[in-house]
Formats: sequence, structure tokens, C-alpha cells
Amino acid sequence: MTQWDQRKRPIRLERRIEFDTYEATRKFLDDLGELSESKKIYPDISFGKDYVNITLRPESEEKDAPLTDLEYKFAAQIDGILD
Amino acid sequence: MTQWDQRKRPIRLERRIEFDTYEATRKFLDDLGELSESKKIYPDISFGKDYVNITLRPESEEKDAPLTDLEYKFAAQIDGILD
Repeated sequence: MTQWDQRKRPIRLERRIEFDTYEATRKFLDDLGELSESKKIYPDISFGKDYVNITLRPESEEKDAPLTDLEYKFAAQIDGILD
Repeated sequence: MTQWDQRKRPIRLERRIEFDTYEATRKFLDDLGELSESKKIYPDISFGKDYVNITLRPESEEKDAPLTDLEYKFAAQIDGILD
């Protein structure tokens, strides 16, 4: 979990990943899309030619809801598709 | 061009598009990826389950460089893949 930053206001888990080429960026986004569909978890993503930023927020939309296993597991699964 | 917002600091062209489903969002992102590859223009994109935000910046990285036909044409081409 060291690659992810835990941030506050709002509480979230973030990871930035850099790629050498746009093709590699797109490949990762495709894989991430498949993972999202299979888990029904849809993080906020921003990307450009050679980077992807992923933001995972607590599933509960209550104010100050904490991150749970759901987000940590999903983060680990994202790490998995990078290997 | 009415769907795009021209913004300053930094100068940029932005459009937000909403979709009914994650599948429709992914389909659009795929098409946009193909367009980016063919034109060698890579906008900054952020998206979630049902929206995509696109930011086009001036090709020149000089301070206060204006938007040019390049960005306006690419914006119109993006509009084209939505039809």
C-alpha cells in the first residue's frame, strides 16, 4: 500500500502512475476499466498522455466516512494489474 | 463550439460530457483514445462512472499562448465522435 497516498478533506486514497507511452497508458486504462466493471467500483480517474491519477473515495457518502477494506482491496487489485 | 468553455489562468478549452452508463463512458473514452492516437493530440481527461471532462490546452507551452485552430478543430472532432 506504500504507493498510495491517504488524503483528507475529503478522505481519499490516491495513486499516480506514470507510463512511457500513450499506448501503455491506454492499455492500463483498459485493464482498469475491466476491473471496475467486474467489481462495480468506479474510481475518479484523470489522465494525460503518460500518466494516470486514481482517486478512491469511501463507498459511504456520509460526511467523514472512513476508508474501508473495500477501498484498500480495490487499491491492491489495481496494483495487481500493473505487475 | 457552444458546448466548450473557454477558460483562463491557464488558457484552456473544456467540455464536460455526461453519460447514462459506465459502458457508454468507456465506449466514448475508447473512441477518444483512437482519435488522440490518430491526431497525436493528448488532452487531459478526467472521468468517473458517468462523466468525462476534457481539457484542451494550447499546443505551445509558452506563457499565455493562445488557443489556436488546432485546439478548436480537435474540439470539433471530439464533438463529432459523440454524434
